[in-house]
This record gives sequence, structure tokens and C-alpha cells, in this order.
Amino acid sequence: MMTPAVRIEHDSMGAVEVPADRYWGAQTQRALEHFRIGTERMPQEMVQALGLIKRAAAETNAALELLPRQTADAVARAATEVASGALPNHFPLCVWQTGSGTQTNMNVNEVVANRACELLGGVRGDRKLVHPNDHVNLCQSSNDVFPAAMHIAAALGLRSMLLPSLQALEAELEARAHEFAGLVKVGRTHLQDAVPLTLGQEFSGYAAQLALCRRQLEGMMPLLCALALGGTAVGTGLNAHPEFARRAVARLAGYTGLPFLPVDNPFAALAGHEALVAYSGALRTLAVALFKVGNDIRLLASGPRCGIGELELPANEPGSSIMPGKVNPTQCEALTMVAVQVMGLDNAVGIAGSQGHLELNVFKPLIARNVLESARLLADSMRSFRMHAVRGLRAVPERIASHVDRSLMLVTALSRHVGYDRAAEVAHLAHAEGLTLREACLRLGLMDGEAFDRAVDPVRMAHPHDMG
Amino acid sequence: MMTPAVRIEHDSMGAVEVPADRYWGAQTQRALEHFRIGTERMPQEMVQALGLIKRAAAETNAALELLPRQTADAVARAATEVASGALPNHFPLCVWQTGSGTQTNMNVNEVVANRACELLGGVRGDRKLVHPNDHVNLCQSSNDVFPAAMHIAAALGLRSMLLPSLQALEAELEARAHEFAGLVKVGRTHLQDAVPLTLGQEFSGYAAQLALCRRQLEGMMPLLCALALGGTAVGTGLNAHPEFARRAVARLAGYTGLPFLPVDNPFAALAGHEALVAYSGALRTLAVALFKVGNDIRLLASGPRCGIGELELPANEPGSSIMPGKVNPTQCEALTMVAVQVMGLDNAVGIAGSQGHLELNVFKPLIARNVLESARLLADSMRSFRMHAVRGLRAVPERIASHVDRSLMLVTALSRHVGYDRAAEVAHLAHAEGLTLREACLRLGLMDGEAFDRAVDPVRMAHPHDMG
Amino acid sequence: MMTPAVRIEHDSMGAVEVPADRYWGAQTQRALEHFRIGTERMPQEMVQALGLIKRAAAETNAALELLPRQTADAVARAATEVASGALPNHFPLCVWQTGSGTQTNMNVNEVVANRACELLGGVRGDRKLVHPNDHVNLCQSSNDVFPAAMHIAAALGLRSMLLPSLQALEAELEARAHEFAGLVKVGRTHLQDAVPLTLGQEFSGYAAQLALCRRQLEGMMPLLCALALGGTAVGTGLNAHPEFARRAVARLAGYTGLPFLPVDNPFAALAGHEALVAYSGALRTLAVALFKVGNDIRLLASGPRCGIGELELPANEPGSSIMPGKVNPTQCEALTMVAVQVMGLDNAVGIAGSQGHLELNVFKPLIARNVLESARLLADSMRSFRMHAVRGLRAVPERIASHVDRSLMLVTALSRHVGYDRAAEVAHLAHAEGLTLREACLRLGLMDGEAFDRAVDPVRMAHPHDMG
Amino acid sequence: MMTPAVRIEHDSMGAVEVPADRYWGAQTQRALEHFRIGTERMPQEMVQALGLIKRAAAETNAALELLPRQTADAVARAATEVASGALPNHFPLCVWQTGSGTQTNMNVNEVVANRACELLGGVRGDRKLVHPNDHVNLCQSSNDVFPAAMHIAAALGLRSMLLPSLQALEAELEARAHEFAGLVKVGRTHLQDAVPLTLGQEFSGYAAQLALCRRQLEGMMPLLCALALGGTAVGTGLNAHPEFARRAVARLAGYTGLPFLPVDNPFAALAGHEALVAYSGALRTLAVALFKVGNDIRLLASGPRCGIGELELPANEPGSSIMPGKVNPTQCEALTMVAVQVMGLDNAVGIAGSQGHLELNVFKPLIARNVLESARLLADSMRSFRMHAVRGLRAVPERIASHVDRSLMLVTALSRHVGYDRAAEVAHLAHAEGLTLREACLRLGLMDGEAFDRAVDPVRMAHPHDMG
Repeated sequence: MMTPAVRIEHDSMGAVEVPADRYWGAQTQRALEHFRIGTERMPQEMVQALGLIKRAAAETNAALELLPRQTADAVARAATEVASGALPNHFPLCVWQTGSGTQTNMNVNEVVANRACELLGGVRGDRKLVHPNDHVNLCQSSNDVFPAAMHIAAALGLRSMLLPSLQALEAELEARAHEFAGLVKVGRTHLQDAVPLTLGQEFSGYAAQLALCRRQLEGMMPLLCALALGGTAVGTGLNAHPEFARRAVARLAGYTGLPFLPVDNPFAALAGHEALVAYSGALRTLAVALFKVGNDIRLLASGPRCGIGELELPANEPGSSIMPGKVNPTQCEALTMVAVQVMGLDNAVGIAGSQGHLELNVFKPLIARNVLESARLLADSMRSFRMHAVRGLRAVPERIASHVDRSLMLVTALSRHVGYDRAAEVAHLAHAEGLTLREACLRLGLMDGEAFDRAVDPVRMAHPHDMG
Repeated sequence: MMTPAVRIEHDSMGAVEVPADRYWGAQTQRALEHFRIGTERMPQEMVQALGLIKRAAAETNAALELLPRQTADAVARAATEVASGALPNHFPLCVWQTGSGTQTNMNVNEVVANRACELLGGVRGDRKLVHPNDHVNLCQSSNDVFPAAMHIAAALGLRSMLLPSLQALEAELEARAHEFAGLVKVGRTHLQDAVPLTLGQEFSGYAAQLALCRRQLEGMMPLLCALALGGTAVGTGLNAHPEFARRAVARLAGYTGLPFLPVDNPFAALAGHEALVAYSGALRTLAVALFKVGNDIRLLASGPRCGIGELELPANEPGSSIMPGKVNPTQCEALTMVAVQVMGLDNAVGIAGSQGHLELNVFKPLIARNVLESARLLADSMRSFRMHAVRGLRAVPERIASHVDRSLMLVTALSRHVGYDRAAEVAHLAHAEGLTLREACLRLGLMDGEAFDRAVDPVRMAHPHDMG
Repeated sequence: MMTPAVRIEHDSMGAVEVPADRYWGAQTQRALEHFRIGTERMPQEMVQALGLIKRAAAETNAALELLPRQTADAVARAATEVASGALPNHFPLCVWQTGSGTQTNMNVNEVVANRACELLGGVRGDRKLVHPNDHVNLCQSSNDVFPAAMHIAAALGLRSMLLPSLQALEAELEARAHEFAGLVKVGRTHLQDAVPLTLGQEFSGYAAQLALCRRQLEGMMPLLCALALGGTAVGTGLNAHPEFARRAVARLAGYTGLPFLPVDNPFAALAGHEALVAYSGALRTLAVALFKVGNDIRLLASGPRCGIGELELPANEPGSSIMPGKVNPTQCEALTMVAVQVMGLDNAVGIAGSQGHLELNVFKPLIARNVLESARLLADSMRSFRMHAVRGLRAVPERIASHVDRSLMLVTALSRHVGYDRAAEVAHLAHAEGLTLREACLRLGLMDGEAFDRAVDPVRMAHPHDMG
Repeated sequence: MMTPAVRIEHDSMGAVEVPADRYWGAQTQRALEHFRIGTERMPQEMVQALGLIKRAAAETNAALELLPRQTADAVARAATEVASGALPNHFPLCVWQTGSGTQTNMNVNEVVANRACELLGGVRGDRKLVHPNDHVNLCQSSNDVFPAAMHIAAALGLRSMLLPSLQALEAELEARAHEFAGLVKVGRTHLQDAVPLTLGQEFSGYAAQLALCRRQLEGMMPLLCALALGGTAVGTGLNAHPEFARRAVARLAGYTGLPFLPVDNPFAALAGHEALVAYSGALRTLAVALFKVGNDIRLLASGPRCGIGELELPANEPGSSIMPGKVNPTQCEALTMVAVQVMGLDNAVGIAGSQGHLELNVFKPLIARNVLESARLLADSMRSFRMHAVRGLRAVPERIASHVDRSLMLVTALSRHVGYDRAAEVAHLAHAEGLTLREACLRLGLMDGEAFDRAVDPVRMAHPHDMG
């Protein structure tokens, strides 16, 4: 077997061997050797967002006549490849690296530079032809580029993945609310039987919980669209052309259709991450709501015989090979696990956000990773839950009706007709003897069955304001 | 010594002895005996918000002719006393009670009823004269009243306590930013010396971090101003007049000047607490920013001799009885401890918010307590930090200048004049021999002192875009 | 009205007015004015533990001939009063103060000194007679005294409050397990009906969960009994007699009966709080287990008609004035809220524990407060839950039996007798037609009733290994 | 291009197409289609632990004559391949699946069954030859197998990966403590200059913090070695041979050398995860300690010119291309980020642990994933930090000495010789004029230089009890 071919790359510390078939250079290789922590790599979304920035920078620098047009074109083309995800095997670094994300920024600079060399007909590693720092990173610093990429990746994920998945789940829950509008059921507070409502009303509540979360998330977009670009190393913008930030950010807005703007205060944007902490908090709010929805549906589908059993989940996989009707709420379980994980990741984001020191917060890779991971997990699990649990969800009307029938809480409707004391007497008799209220009422001779049915109308109780 | 006099109060379970000098009734007394957990009581803000609601309910019920005018007037007067905080010793219940807050709602109902009895010339406990449920709680349920009170208390605290304290701190930090605008200092990234900025720029970053948090908090107001009132037991509004919610909420808006509205979906508002979870998240964002600010000021004031020492904190208390200049950053310590506590309380709020079951979330007292506590701690500690740390904060210009002087990072400015390689040579010599860059530059004979001073201008480096 | 009388006290910064009727001195008064944050005071347990230390220090210093016997006696007597809780109104400082707890240590030093002055026939504030630093704080620093007090307070609370409450709850759950041993019931996994077990087995699981937590907590005692005393300001023991730590700690062991020892490494004990972080983690494990137990009992008692309804909680307070049988699981709610709060407080303790800087962690008051609060909340809520929920808990045998009867999961026992395919056919018929398995089996003519009853024996299924 | 070949597999719901080149069967394929959430797969450690269990089960079942010897041998061989990690591409399921881990257990059952078929000369999918449930899963249920695998994987990781990495870091820190024993330096409390200690003492504190964490982790081993095996579906052991658990667990102990035992109470072990919550808490304690150590080293290495600068980190990568001496504390950054992540993951584990329902906790995959991930991240980052930061760490004696020289805190040693008042005068003069204490003392004419040097001996102050 042949040993894999290597080539020599250089950085300011000297020469390093890198695999010949990879575009990365010396700094990436050093980082690869010094940071072997965990199994996860820096999220692809971050790499792609950095690719977008490198493209915008090259085009801006060309327009500002800071970079020769030909070099800029090659850099922009190479960066576009990175941004499109076309070079997935050239970004080997793990999340747990330098806290400014410098190593990943250099990874992108090196890959773009070497790929641009090739596009210009040169060879990889020819730093004179295209230099990772002097050309690709021109007018930039990891300290402004990396937080800008964090915002871009978060905003793209929010727009393209999270909000669509959330809207679709909301719509599906509303469809169930509509479908279930006529099913009057026992309400439950403290997990105890309470006055009735409709199953549709219950599901309208789920949709409303999600709608509130969606509006909070939508409100995050302006925060995420403020980019630190132009701050360079400490926020002053040293070594960046005064026009760079405005122009590069406008290009990024053009590429993506998102209303990106330079941040008002670059010092705050390098040293703190309040915008992403706030976004993480909004993701957490959604997780909280989804936990409730997933858990409620699991409760309502508990049984089939010895639980509540008012809902029936689609049977996606064998629950029990011998027992029909046993459908495990596996989608609810995945959803609630994801919700808990998002709470944990958010907790870490908050701590990390608080730990900036002077001009720089060096917990950026953690914040980026957790925020993007949470958004992805939420988007994926909402889609899964919608397709495999909510879409095929079936009410069990006979069970729902039998509960309403048996419930003692309807007695509250009786008191208007026979007085509070007699009504309580009915309820006590029913409870003591295991009767329905109707049976107890008849046995006490307070009303006939017809009068009872007119008086005790769960439908009216569920809609007290709609019907006289 | 006489045993404390008692009187007998009744509820649906029978008779209970209560202290004669207290307004509470049977249900409060039972709760007092069954829930002896911890030392903290239900926050006064919750009691006062419930007082406001009882007043609004009484006035609304009178207008709707559901309650006799005379009874309503007495109830409204008694409720106003509760709302004003005039009866602090009549609300003995702890936070850790029933999860719907029913016991505190009944405590308020009982106190208002008994006080109203007195106002009407009756005696405490005369449930025929004024009944805690039938009169005071009319058209209400704990399940809608308690979450409404949570929102009212949170909104009042945000407007009257938290935002003013936050704005004042922001203004104080901006005042320091202005005052320190001319002080060029060494930037620090990764806690390592970096290119310069001004101390004023650094402080502008702190103010900007807080401004972002403030805007997030202000954006919470509409969420908090949506009130669950009118939902009653499960959200359907059973037993409430159809006009009750709209009218009572309008009265609450009138009392407070806050734009209260009934919630869109009462089912969601009883069963979930996304609005308060979101608010808690926004409090957490503020805590995160404050931790950074407090910690930075502690770092910059470290010393006096063997730390950074660029700031000097006001000496509020003896640091060391023998050593002048030792000023412990005690306000920073209180602030950062509060920040951490708020993160912990927020964590609990998130978990609690996820744990609703069907028509009701029964973690309401925890959510109320933690959100109100966090707001109070943040408001108080920001005021303390502003008055006792930021207001009297002094820059130490000689120390700041000496750092700039000694820093090697200014070498980046030299490369434009002597080329990159020579500049690096200067830096290496300075580092190796412990020289300043100026000394090294002179020793190498690259420039004279005057040329050096023109070339290496930290002021210009801190304002690269302001000056040619 | 007379203005409250004041007296003048001094510290190294000068003179301060303090209320004449309070024992505290100048530094306490300064702290009171500079730290008005929140409503909570430093926990009394911390004050009392500091009292114990001051007594041990005085007696040790007398024995080492560092303090005149008469002074030492007065200090020890005054400190004993503090330790016994006899002076509750003299410790007004809030939790959120300097992060080393210096202000509370000085509060105790000042109160002990002034009270000792009185005991010696002098007047308060006579620093020559008894000096808060030179006499009361002799051989000590806040930096070693405060963490030692944190450990003492935590260890005392663990032994005297938390473990007894936990053991009592375990015993009560075991009593229920014994009482319920004969009740075969439907098991539930994924909240879906599963194979049977006994209610006693279910409760044995709860007791076993708590037993594991208890053992983890007991294992914390050696960690808590290691005291930082003797480290003084930075861990070196400067200004403390070499014998001081060993002797003073031995006295503390003598007073309390706890196996206190000096820490192995005082540098670690001032700068880190791993022992208390570990203890907080163990409290969290208990909270986690209690949440499960409280929530399970709430689930099993859900109903009375439309939930699981296999347990009936004692009716401690009116659930519904008209509906008998509606018993809200209020004790479960208080318990699960406490569990969530403990998780949040633990989260803050972990963050705080990580934030030490060099020779000192300055989040000590937060760590002390949260750990002591969590222990108290857990102890109180377990006692409440035991007395008001578990003690009077009643099984509902008819409901339990009816569930077993109706469950389809017993079909697994049938397959041994009629083969898998026929058994599945029975289950399908039962499910489709709403029959019991017995009915379905008879209708299919596979067995007679007697044979069915012999074959399908839930008792045997719940004890597969006990009976042939 | 050919479409990938598929074959047909069956389960109780019918036929499913699976890729022909994979060993998995119908249930895995269904799960793959229904759970597309996130990018992470179930940890390999879980798959391998399940492999070990399948081997132990097959061998035990053969010995109990429940499984033909030939079948058992093939199953055991196939399971051993899984346990050794030899079939990495056959376990495609994500973490976020059914909360009991059933799908991964079935994935292992299916792969082992199909591989065993091949070993027996049959074809994949021949359920008559080797059946995933009837043969591979015999005497087991996902509900006992999955938690057993969680414990096995955690225990193996603790023994083989985490403890060795922790011990090595402890040893490296102790080596530095020894190396730095003679370097007297300024102590810092509240980040303010304090009395001296040695750099060696400081590092001994770090090692002691880690030693405490190590002992807590070692104490977890007995908890982790208790295996739920034998409980089957709900804890009763239905369908498992009474001897199965004891024998299978003994085999697992034999394979691994770990003291595995069956759990005392299987009901608790399926429904709760206190052992793993406790373990997660212990991992969190370690994270807390590591944060402190990493952050301290970053503080001490801050500079090179304008920070503390008492330590110099090895330069692993270019810090700044032009500025020598700028070494970013990248290993500290990775370590502290990992510490924060572990805190967040632990938070999720605690929540998940509390969410069991009756006979089963269905957050098992989350708990497994987070606990294993935390252990791996801690082990890897400690190794990286040890090799690339602590090993090459260099003290900067001249800087350390200059700080000691300049510090005003040494004045405390002077008071024994010139009295408190004169000593304070010296300190004030030094502070006001920017002098060293020595200079101020000489200028005031209190002592000559020699006397000063004898009196103010930082070495003695750092070792007050070692030297007269």
C-alpha cells in the first residue's frame, strides 16, 4: 500500500506536511494536530457562511481596487464553491478549537486560496499567487469575520429551515383543530377531570403556543442580520478600508435576500453575543412549547385501554408484535428529547455568552454550534412529528364521549336548574355508587331524562359564549 | 400570657380556626398548615396584582349588574387596599403550594371578602355578606386570574423598576464612554495584547450590549400585556359573562396605564407560559451582558500594582486596613453573582414552562416567583453597580499610557514605513531584550525618534477611519 | 415620633452611624448601604456556622495563648449566642454582597465583639476592649472562614434536616409498597399499557430511587467535613498559628459531633468549591428522583373518572366545592415545583463554581445560599409530601382490577397455550370489537372460561420468578 | 449507473426494502425513514455495549438450554464483531428516536441476526435460521437491555478514557507544581494583589481540585456497574429465565473486568436514571474545576506586556504573524468551551432524568448520548490541554519577581518591625509616589535596605509555617 502523498505548506511558523489531495494549508494542519477533541466537526453552515463572506470580500476588494481583478475573480469563484458546499472534505477541524474561530477562518482562507491558485492555473500552496491572509482575508480579521458568519448561518437556518418547519407544524395542528372542532371532551386541570371543552379548542391552543414562538423567532431576524464585518481585530476597523463593511454587507444581502446591515457598535459585536443569546433563548421558548404539545399528545393517546385513549397515533412501526392497538408515541418521544436537548444547549450558550473578556468573546465556536444544532434539531423534529404523528392523528370519538358521559364535572351545569345543594347531592350519589350523573339524577327523581339532557349540555358548556 | 385569639372560618370542607387578627379565611389557613416549605412567601407583587384584578372584577361585575353596587364598592375598596400593599401581613402563604396558585388566589379572595365585610359594617367571616368565591371571585377562576396576575406583575416590574434601572446604567456607561473618549489604550483579545482602541470605545461597547438587551426587554411588553382573564377554568370562559374579560382588562389598563388586552387564545394562556418563558429568556440575555461588563471592569481594575490596573474603582468599604489602593471589586462581585443567579432561575423557568399538562400548567408560582425575583435582582444590582461602581470609576491614564508604550502590537503600524520584515525584526528585538518598540527601532537605526512617533500613532490606530 | 437613636462606630475608613439598638458595627453598616439588592438575607445557617467558628477560634486562641482568657471567654459566649440563633435581628446583610462573604464575616465579627464588650461590662463599639478583627477574627481571614462556614452549614443541614426527611419519605414509600404488594396492576411503558406488575413493586421502585439518592448524599459528608480553616487569605496560613487549624477544627467536631478535618489543600479550598458543587449535584439527583415520584403519583391519581384513577390522594383542601372526588394533587405540585427549582439553583451553583479567579472564588454567597436553600426546600417538601400525600394515599382496587381485566397485554400469556397466531387473533378481535380478552377467547371458542383464567394469570405474570 | 441493490426484509408490520449490502432489517429501515433528525448517530459506544450484551445473552441462553448451541455460537460471534466495532456502517440510526432506545436495540438485533445467518451459511433475512427477537433478543427487552448498555458504555468510558486522561493531567499539574515550587509570587484575591504564595502552591491547588473530582468519579463506578439486565419489559423479569440476569451479568464482568452486578431493584432501573444523573453531575464537577484551571492559566499568561504575564504558554500555532510573544491561549479556550458544553449537556441530562413516566423513562438516548459525549469531550480536551499547554508551560521568573517587588501587600510583613502605623505610612507613600515599598521605606529612613530585605521576605510569607 502506498502512503498517502503529502505536499509541504508554509505559514509564519514554518513548513508543514499536508495531505496532497486536500486544499487546506499549514495552519489548518497544525490545528488538526493540536485539537483532537470529540467527533464533531465545525458545522458546515459555518463553513458555507464563511465562503459567502470570502466571496463578498473579494468582490468588494476588487471594486475598491485593493485586489487585482483577476485574483479577486478566482478567489470569488473558489469562495462560491465553498459557500455552495461543494468541497465538504476540506474542512476537517473540530468545534473545540480556538475560541475566536480563527482556525476555521484560516481553514477557509487556505482552501479558498489554494483552490483559487488552481483556478488561476497555479499549484496549491503558491502563496505568491493567492495568499490566504493577504488576499483572501483582506480587510478582515477572524474576530469580525467569524461572528458575522455566525449571524449569517443562523439567519439562513432560521429563514430556510426553522420557520418553514414551524409554520407547517402550526398549519397541521390548526388542521386538526378544525377537524376536531365538534368533539366535546372532558377538560383536565391538575390532571383532574374538569369542565368540558372541544378537542378542537385544545388543538387551537397548541397552534397558538407555536404561533407565539414563531413571532418571537421572526422578531430575532433583525438582530441576526446585524453583521460585525468591518470591525477587524478589536472593533476599530484597523486595516479595513472605510467602505469595506458597508459594501461587503450589501453584497451579502444581495446573495441571500436577507436584510443584512453592519452592526451599530462593532466593539459590542466582537466582545459579546447578546443577539445569539437572545436567539438561543427564543429557540428555547419553542422547545418549551413543543415539549408541552408532544407530551399532551402522548397523554391523550395513552392506553389503548388503561390510559386516556382519546387520541390514536399513526402506527409507524411495530409497537408490540402481538398486541394490536399498542402504538408507542415514538415521535412524541423524539420531539420531547429534542426539546430537552435544546434547553441544555441553550444553557451552555448563555454561560458562554457571559464569558467574554475585554475585546473578544472566545466561546464563539460553542455558541455557533449550539445555536445551529438547536435550530436544526427543532426543524427536523417538527417535520418528523408533523409528518409521522400529527398528520395521521385520529380522535377516538367513542372514548371521548364515554369520558364526557362519565365525568362528574358536568354537575356544574345542573345547579342552575335544581340548585347548588341538590346538584351536589347528585354528584355525591354518582361518586359513591359509581353512577353517571344522569343515572343519579333520575334515581333521586329530580328530573326526567329528557330534562337532564336539555340541562346538561356539554356542547354548550364548551361554547358558553357562542350559544344562548 | 394570653393565647392568641382565634375565630372560626368555613369553607366547603367545614370549619377552621384562624387567628382573629388576620383577614384570611379557612382555605388560606388549610394551605398554611399543609404547605410549610422554605422561608419565602409568595411575592408581594403577585398579591398586589391580584388585588388590582379583584378591583377590576368587582367594578366590571357591578357594571354588568352581576353584583350589587354596594357589595361591589366594598369589594373594590378592599381590593384597592390589597393592591396598594396596605395589608402586608395577611398573605402568609409560601411559593411552594398548589401549582395553579389557587391558594394565593383564595387568600386574596378571603382577605378582600373579610375586609369588605368590615367596610360594610359586618364581621369577618360573614360569607353571606361578602363571599370570597361568589362575590370576590365572580366571573373568575384561579386558572385565568393567576396567570393574568403573573403578567400584570411582570409588566409593572419591567416598566417601573427594571427598565429605568437599565436605562440609568446605560446612561452612566455612556457618560464614562464620553469621559474616556480620549484615552487610547491597548486592546486585548484572547486576553492577549492587541491593537489599540480608546477606553471610551470599550465603554461604548458596554452601553451597546445593554442597549440591545433593553430593546429585547421592551419588545416583551406586548406579550406580557396579553391577559388570560376571561378564560376561567379551562379557557372556554364558562361562568364568566361574555363581556367580562374585555371590560375588566380595559379597567386594568386604565389603572396602570399599560396596554393590557385579553389574550387571543385563552387555552394556550392557561396551559402554557411561552410569554413568561420568553421574558425570562430576555432577562437572561441581560444577565449575560451584565456579567461581561462587571467582569471586564473587575479585570481592568485588577491590581493595583500586579494586574491590569487601568481603572480604579471607588473605595466604598475598607479593602485592606493597611494597604492603600487595594479596592475589592465588590460591586462587580454582587453584579456577577446576580447574573449567575438569574441564569439559574431562568433555567428553572424554562423547565417549568415545559411541564404543563393538558388544560393547565401547574408550575405557575415558580414561574411567577423566579421571573419577578430575577427582575428585582437585576434592577437592584444594576442600580447598586451604577451608583457605587460606575459613577465613581476613574481611569488611570499613566497606567494606560505605559501599557500602550510598552505594547508590541503597535509594530503593525511600523510595517507601512519600514516594511514587514524590518518591522518584525524590531518586534523581535524588543521582545528579546525587553525594550519598547521605540527603543528597539532606534537601536536598529531604522528611524529617528520623531519619525517613529509620527509613524506609530496609537490614536490614529484607534480611529483608522476618522483620520487620514 | 423620635428618630431612632444611633451610635458612632469606626473602621479603618472612619466613623459611621449605626442604629443604637443593634450590635453591628461600621463595616456592616457600610455594606448595608452599598448593597440593597433583593429581599433575601444571608441564610441564618451561615450566620450560625460563623458563630460556631468564632467560638472555636476564641477557645483555640486562648489555649494557644494568643488571646487573654477573659477576652476569649467573652468572645466565645457571644459567639455561642450567635451560633444558637439568639440574635436574629443583628444580621441584616443581603446575599448579594462581596463574593468572598467578607461583609457577613465582618458582621459576625462586629456583633460578637460588641456583644462580648457588653458581657465584659463595657460598651458597644469599644474596639480596645474587644476588637472585631484583632480579637474575634484572630488567626482567620474571610477567605478561609467563610468557606469553612459554608461546609459546616451544609453538613449540619444534611445531617439534621435533609437525611431525616429523606429517610422518612423512603420509609413511608416502603410502607405503601408493603401495603400494596398484593395489588396486581397494568404496567405502563411509553405511557402505553404493558405487562402487569404489582402496585407494591411500583412503589418499591420509588423507594429504591430515593435510596440511591440517599446513599449519594451520605457519601458527600466527608467532602463537606473538610474545612478550609487555617488557610487565611490565600491558603498559605499567613498570620495563623500553625496549630490553629487542627485545634479549632477539632473543637468544631466536638461541638457538632461531625467528623470535621482541615482540608488537605487549602489553596484549592479557597479558590474552588468542587465539594459544594458535587453536593449540589447530589441534591439535584434527589430532585430528579422526586420529580418522577411526584409526577407518577399525580398520573396514577388522575381522574377521578376520566384519568387513570388507580390511586386516591388524601383530600387536604377543597378541590371543587361541588364535585366530590376531585382532589387536586397539590402536594405533588409543590414537590415537583421544588424539584425544578433545585435544578435551577444547581445550575447556578455549577456556573458559580467555575468562576474562581486565581486564589479566590468570589461567588461564595451564591453557592452557600443556593445549596442551603435547595436542602431546605427538599427537606420541607419531602416532609410535606410524606405527611399530606403519601401517608394517606389509598389504592383504588376496583379500578386497578378493571384495568387489568380490560388490558390486552395479558394476551402474551395466552400464546403459550394456543400459539402465537391464535393469541394475536384473540387480541385483534378484542381490540376491534371492544371486548375483553376473555370474551374474545370464548367467542372464538379457543378455551373455556376456566381454562382462560388458569392460563391468563396476572399475578403470576407480575411474579414470574416467584411462582412456578 | 446501477441503482443500489435492495433486498426485502420483514417484521410484524410486513415487508420493507433495505439496501442489500447492509445487515440491518425491517425495523431499522422503518426507523431510518421515520426519524431523520439532526446529523448525529447513536454513539458507537452504545452499539458496542449492546454487542457485548447480545454475546453474553447468547452464551447464557445456550448454557440455560434456551438456545441451540450452534445458533448461540453464531449469534455470539456476530455480536462480538459488533462489540469490537467491526461493523461501523450498519448502525445508521440517529440519537433522536424512540425514547426507550428500542430502535437501536432492534438495529443491533437485526444486524447480529443477519450476520449470524451468514456465519451459519444462510442468507440475510432468513428469520427462521436466526431471528432478531426470538434468538438474539431472547430473555431481553429493550427496556432492560438499553439501560444496561448505557451503564456498560459509561463504565467502560470512565475506566478506559476519562480516568486515565484525568490522572495524566493531574500528574502533569503536579509536575509543574514541583517545578515551580521555588517561585514566590503575588497572590491575588478578588483579582487584587494579595499576600504572596509560590507558583508551585498555586499549581498544587489545581491538582488538588482535580483530585477531588477524580475521587468523585471513581466513586461512581459501583453505581454504573449495576445493570438492569433481567428486568425485561417492566422490571418483573417476565419472559426471562430466573437465572438469566445473574449469569449474563457475570459474563459481562468477565469480558470487561468490570465488577458488574444486577441492580437491586429493576423497577427503579428502568423507570429512573439516578445513577447516570449522578454520574453526569460528577462530570459537571470536573468541568467546573477544569474551567477554573484553564481560565487561571489564561489569566496568568495574559500579556505578554500588558497583562499579568507570569506564565508563558507553548506557541503551538501562529498567534500573530508579526508580533513575537503573542501566544493565544487556544488550548485554554478549547478546554473552557468544553467545560461549558458539559454543563449544558448535564443540564439536559437532569431534566431528562426527571421525566420518566411510570414503568419507563423514555429519554434514554439523550441521557446516553450526553453522558458519553461529555466523558469523551472531557477526556480529549484534558489530553490536548496537558500535551499542548501544561507540558510546555514556562514560568516567567523575572516578571513574577518584578510583581513581588512592586506589590504593596508585602507591607503586612513590615508592621511587625516598625509598627502598624509606620507600615501604613510606607504603603501610602509608595502608592502615592509609585515607589516600591523598599524605596518608600528607605526614603522615610525607617530601615536600611539590608534590614528591609531581612524583614520583608516573601519566601517566608509564602511558607509561614515551614520556617521560623
